[in-house]
Amino acid sequence: MRRFATERAKRLLFGSLLASRSPPSAFLCSSPPAAAAMDPAAGVVTVDTINPKVLKCEYAVRGEIVSHAQRLQQELQDKPGSHPFDEILYCNIGNPQSLGQQPVTFFREVLALCDHPSLLDKSETHALFSADAIARAWQILDVIPGRATGAYSHKLLIRQGIKGLRDAIAAGIADRDGFPANPDDIFLTDGASPAVHMMMQLLIRSEKDGILCPIPQYPLYSASIALHGGSLVPYYLDESTGWGLEISELKKQLEDARSKGITVRALVVINPGNPTGQVLAEENQREIVNFCKNEGLVLLADEVYQENIYVDDKKFNSFKKITRSMGYSDDEIPLVSFQSVSKGYYGECGKRGGYMEVTGFNAGVREQIYKVASVNLCSNISGQILASLVMNPPKVGDESYESFNAEKNGILSSLARRAKALEDAFNSLEGVSCNKAEGAMYLFPRLRLPQKAIAAAKAVNAAPDAFYARRLLDATGIVVVPGSGFGQVPGTWHVRCTILPQEDKIPAIISRLKAFHEAFMEEFRG
Amino acid sequence: MRRFATERAKRLLFGSLLASRSPPSAFLCSSPPAAAAMDPAAGVVTVDTINPKVLKCEYAVRGEIVSHAQRLQQELQDKPGSHPFDEILYCNIGNPQSLGQQPVTFFREVLALCDHPSLLDKSETHALFSADAIARAWQILDVIPGRATGAYSHKLLIRQGIKGLRDAIAAGIADRDGFPANPDDIFLTDGASPAVHMMMQLLIRSEKDGILCPIPQYPLYSASIALHGGSLVPYYLDESTGWGLEISELKKQLEDARSKGITVRALVVINPGNPTGQVLAEENQREIVNFCKNEGLVLLADEVYQENIYVDDKKFNSFKKITRSMGYSDDEIPLVSFQSVSKGYYGECGKRGGYMEVTGFNAGVREQIYKVASVNLCSNISGQILASLVMNPPKVGDESYESFNAEKNGILSSLARRAKALEDAFNSLEGVSCNKAEGAMYLFPRLRLPQKAIAAAKAVNAAPDAFYARRLLDATGIVVVPGSGFGQVPGTWHVRCTILPQEDKIPAIISRLKAFHEAFMEEFRG
Repeated sequence: MRRFATERAKRLLFGSLLASRSPPSAFLCSSPPAAAAMDPAAGVVTVDTINPKVLKCEYAVRGEIVSHAQRLQQELQDKPGSHPFDEILYCNIGNPQSLGQQPVTFFREVLALCDHPSLLDKSETHALFSADAIARAWQILDVIPGRATGAYSHKLLIRQGIKGLRDAIAAGIADRDGFPANPDDIFLTDGASPAVHMMMQLLIRSEKDGILCPIPQYPLYSASIALHGGSLVPYYLDESTGWGLEISELKKQLEDARSKGITVRALVVINPGNPTGQVLAEENQREIVNFCKNEGLVLLADEVYQENIYVDDKKFNSFKKITRSMGYSDDEIPLVSFQSVSKGYYGECGKRGGYMEVTGFNAGVREQIYKVASVNLCSNISGQILASLVMNPPKVGDESYESFNAEKNGILSSLARRAKALEDAFNSLEGVSCNKAEGAMYLFPRLRLPQKAIAAAKAVNAAPDAFYARRLLDATGIVVVPGSGFGQVPGTWHVRCTILPQEDKIPAIISRLKAFHEAFMEEFRG
Repeated sequence: MRRFATERAKRLLFGSLLASRSPPSAFLCSSPPAAAAMDPAAGVVTVDTINPKVLKCEYAVRGEIVSHAQRLQQELQDKPGSHPFDEILYCNIGNPQSLGQQPVTFFREVLALCDHPSLLDKSETHALFSADAIARAWQILDVIPGRATGAYSHKLLIRQGIKGLRDAIAAGIADRDGFPANPDDIFLTDGASPAVHMMMQLLIRSEKDGILCPIPQYPLYSASIALHGGSLVPYYLDESTGWGLEISELKKQLEDARSKGITVRALVVINPGNPTGQVLAEENQREIVNFCKNEGLVLLADEVYQENIYVDDKKFNSFKKITRSMGYSDDEIPLVSFQSVSKGYYGECGKRGGYMEVTGFNAGVREQIYKVASVNLCSNISGQILASLVMNPPKVGDESYESFNAEKNGILSSLARRAKALEDAFNSLEGVSCNKAEGAMYLFPRLRLPQKAIAAAKAVNAAPDAFYARRLLDATGIVVVPGSGFGQVPGTWHVRCTILPQEDKIPAIISRLKAFHEAFMEEFRG
């Protein structure tokens, strides 16, 4: 069936990766086919003649299930009442503001003033903006050469982002960690994704270079590794210990990859986890750092959910803080920390702001990172400004502090309540078990599906979790992402569900989900 | 000497490309070295173990001469009077607002309102913003799902950019060309650079795939081709006919590349030219289209300077308009047109807005382009909004129309005067000839340097034009980019000089330039 074509392609792709858990095989790209050089027609662009690395790259979060949801949404609009629900509930993507989350006022005030600085000269502005937003806009404009928010940020050695904004971010990092941060280590980027691509581009020379990635993983990593022609070396998170990250598993997979001739270059750790929501314990982080140190690996730390913690007994610790608290100096551990304005309580996905903090590389390599960053010119200045703001929000005594704090805490406590409600709902379902979302924005429940459901999925060439997600969507309008898009232990099935629908919608989501699940289990019961 | 190291690397790089004009050799990347897989230390990141494609990539506009200028600027700041000039005059980069050009008021009003939409509910706002900016902001917010300027633009099949903004851009293109444009052909991007990278990533499979590029060229192209591991196939613009683009030269280079086993996939045309400033004649564009059609090449049309035309007898024609006026349908010519908010009269480099209009590819290939665009999530929403604004500026009858038009014409007529004044100045110098800047933002004068100067350059391991540019900077504070960064016919020497310093600085630049040049020629006269 046409509608399952993408899912099928995905299973084929992940098939080689996940066919056997022991020994797990690395995901190898084949060599590009030799071009038939003498024939001009060989150059004509078809799917068969484009870069095969592009063909191999898959990106599940915005895959077939989402396209189908969009078709249903159009049908609902064209013909109200044509489906057993009146709206599509997007639980597939970490995009808070598309689901009604309001932007944080202080951040938007500052952005508007920086966009149109002549407002700052007018008296009416004081009636419309808070005093500290006005002061902050002045501060920011003062660190932008010529106050030119419409200029590339290149002059004065600021190609990696405006120096004054990097100073502010470094100060924010130092406040967070209790260890100094160097503004020259900060590279401002359009969200975290381009930063990840840059590092993959730098590290991957051929399919013999491997990157250790968690399974399940956020598919940016598999997509970026495929695009740059490297090998994804999987390590499995342990669902039975709340998605624990075991050093023994890292070692086993590293050795297995090496035995296959793969040079493993880096370890990706996502903390808090995506799609898994776990928050790493400090002791575990120390072990990870030592593992990277001993094995000569770059530690790529995806820390974009650092503000999203929902349980009292866990705390976010940056890997930078962990390495420094272990006594390692700036030179000893090659470490890249990714941060983004898209997540946290701010959720400013559309602004495309973010940074990477790069430490532990020698001067020659840093120069090459700088070059790769320069080829894309600078990142957008509004995103740069916003990155400096989220790392330096209003402080006690600022006019906006109380209202800012109320907005922030309102969002975070609501997210915690939504996470708990959805977790409980999933755990109440027959055959479903769901670890806590300690952090991030997702739940990743495991589905134990009846054999008949698995057979029915097979009959339409779908993975069982894709089959379940499709049936859920058709029955309820709820969009979740099949676990096969993130990778999972073969023979287990999951879905990823965000905790982002607005709180007043959660009860309806839960009741629809329960009713659907009961009917589904009833239909396929053995 | 350390300070010329980058220039030397550049010459080595371009050496193989430009060593002989006839037959010209394509620039081939060597294969990545095999990794020593069994040895963990082989994975440690050094310059010798990173992706060699990254090492090969060079980007001249922001190269060694700029770093030196930044050092001088710091010295001037720390120790005023330490150099024979009191400021650095950056004529190296097309970054208008960094040199004092003011942003266009209407565009910034709309951006500020979209950034902070709650302003729209307040009465004071009418005292601060024009009525049509307020109306436009409402229009834009109405086409953004949930009015969420902080959301990824993914829902409703809008991963390639917000649908309503693409509609506006398509309408702007149709107005410009007199032929319809399809919003589904528009991919919104963070400036034009990521769009160019995406197309290179799609087209290049290995070093056996070639891209025909003008020489001189904007080094984004050589950098992107190197990063993606392809071969740059050069074609030379004819300086003696005002940087003419000869079809016979295209044919010769194409055949030469094919005889070497290169599959040529695309032709890059920059119109108006960068660094060369010429505007193509309509008849010439038709020939280029037919050449691509006959040879099965994708036409990559860099049209980011479409608003920058300074002579009465030339007019910008998009390649889309040319192909349609020749009777070709949307399916017949694979054509990608790049546009950016960074250039034009708006010069909004820091906003990172732009788009590519993609026509003539089959559905399968389009899907792959869509995928590559999705891997980077969406482009920043402020940049998307700005791209829709520059393609649909205020119209007759709008409140802002007159003031907008005055700002626009003020900038463009000033740029035309600056171009003419600098062109005349270069042509007045001994041994220098300079073609007209018919468009774009640059002059690319040819320097005929005395043999003694060439010998002096050689003695310090510098290209003669880099030597000249360095001496110019040290004597006057004027920063220009050596022609060797763009490529040039071997044995000829040029510099690229922007026309962007504010008009009141132009007389001083000219007098400093003349005095320097006379002294230089005097020093090295044979």
